[in-house]
Amino acid sequence: MVKYKEIAHAITQYIEDNDLKQHDKLPVIDALAEQFKASKSTIIKALDILEAKGQIYQVQGSGIFVRELRLDGFVNLNRPNGLSQSLHKGDLINKVIEVSIIKPTNELIEQLACEANEDIYLVKRTRYTANGPIAYEISYYRKKLIKYMDKEIASGSIFRYLREHYNIDPGFSNAYFKILPLDAEATRYLEETPGAYGMKLINQFFLPNGTIFDYSITWYQKDRSHFFVPSTFY
Amino acid sequence: MVKYKEIAHAITQYIEDNDLKQHDKLPVIDALAEQFKASKSTIIKALDILEAKGQIYQVQGSGIFVRELRLDGFVNLNRPNGLSQSLHKGDLINKVIEVSIIKPTNELIEQLACEANEDIYLVKRTRYTANGPIAYEISYYRKKLIKYMDKEIASGSIFRYLREHYNIDPGFSNAYFKILPLDAEATRYLEETPGAYGMKLINQFFLPNGTIFDYSITWYQKDRSHFFVPSTFY
Repeated sequence: MVKYKEIAHAITQYIEDNDLKQHDKLPVIDALAEQFKASKSTIIKALDILEAKGQIYQVQGSGIFVRELRLDGFVNLNRPNGLSQSLHKGDLINKVIEVSIIKPTNELIEQLACEANEDIYLVKRTRYTANGPIAYEISYYRKKLIKYMDKEIASGSIFRYLREHYNIDPGFSNAYFKILPLDAEATRYLEETPGAYGMKLINQFFLPNGTIFDYSITWYQKDRSHFFVPSTFY
Repeated sequence: MVKYKEIAHAITQYIEDNDLKQHDKLPVIDALAEQFKASKSTIIKALDILEAKGQIYQVQGSGIFVRELRLDGFVNLNRPNGLSQSLHKGDLINKVIEVSIIKPTNELIEQLACEANEDIYLVKRTRYTANGPIAYEISYYRKKLIKYMDKEIASGSIFRYLREHYNIDPGFSNAYFKILPLDAEATRYLEETPGAYGMKLINQFFLPNGTIFDYSITWYQKDRSHFFVPSTFY
């Protein structure tokens, strides 16, 4: 990762560790440069990135201020690093339903942009907060890129596993969603009544070079899920 | 607006005008510098911003590629410049229900961070695509910042009006949403059946200095609305 992205990441971490809230002021650029052992120009670049990503705002002549990053109980769709990053720590328990290897359907070949005879890891899990199941997730990973997966791994943060074991560093993602009646499986796993509505969210996760490595469908239970999207103009 | 943000905006415009699609390649930095009459370092800065905002991705040694910006019929929640910017041009008609001046309720005082005796513009409108009403929107603007509003103005893009008449250049926004049964008004204006679910989206719009100038509640009709959120990791 290039230096200014590393620093941007470190500043985000600093905001979280210090539990800074919306409109809280960050140290001045000189102080940040000293604290993060980086040049002023690297700090400025990192701050511009964080501004574009909706994590801070900069007011000329006044300072650098924090924006709302993580809201208790809200899923931040602009921070796609897994639900466990988005909700508060310790709030989320995964119940793994299935981990298996399959051949892709035509839909999957298109969504993963993969070969017809490739092995694909299928992972199904239900994700629980203290209030009950919030999400039922069906994920597909290209085995070509993720060599090994099992139920134990899937019970934790899969993205952390990918980073630590395969040095896989996701680049970007597209999320698409719509309000729909839950299908039969989602109704069961989300402990809903037949015909209940929910949100169906489809995610494509890309490596930095544009290759898709993960495609997932997540059904959210309507009463337990709240969503948040911070954005920036220009 | 600073130069690199202007260039970032111009590159976005270029992508849209040329109808570039996901994975399409942009010209090299030298060519962009010539085309947009900017220094290479300004171009690099603009590209970093666009990458952080999820509009392009850069692959070392390979080039700069376009990401999905606007998807036919999808509301891009990461481009909050009004629904008219997000859906395809010409797709959206506004029917203005009410424009009036009110005093803020306690909820509004909190949401707009305004004074108790301030005048607030209340704008209610239904937004139609070719398939029927997609959204019912209730917006509140501080009259202190937006001096004049009427039904004719509200039938167009209010954000364009603010930019052209008051030089108001929004800085950032927070969107919060949840799946809920529509309230009575939303049911009527969205031509839904009683008890129907929809999405309730709350937006706070900030000036670049962190002042809130607009607070709005938008109810989306479930069958006609699809949403899109492109994001970036790190």
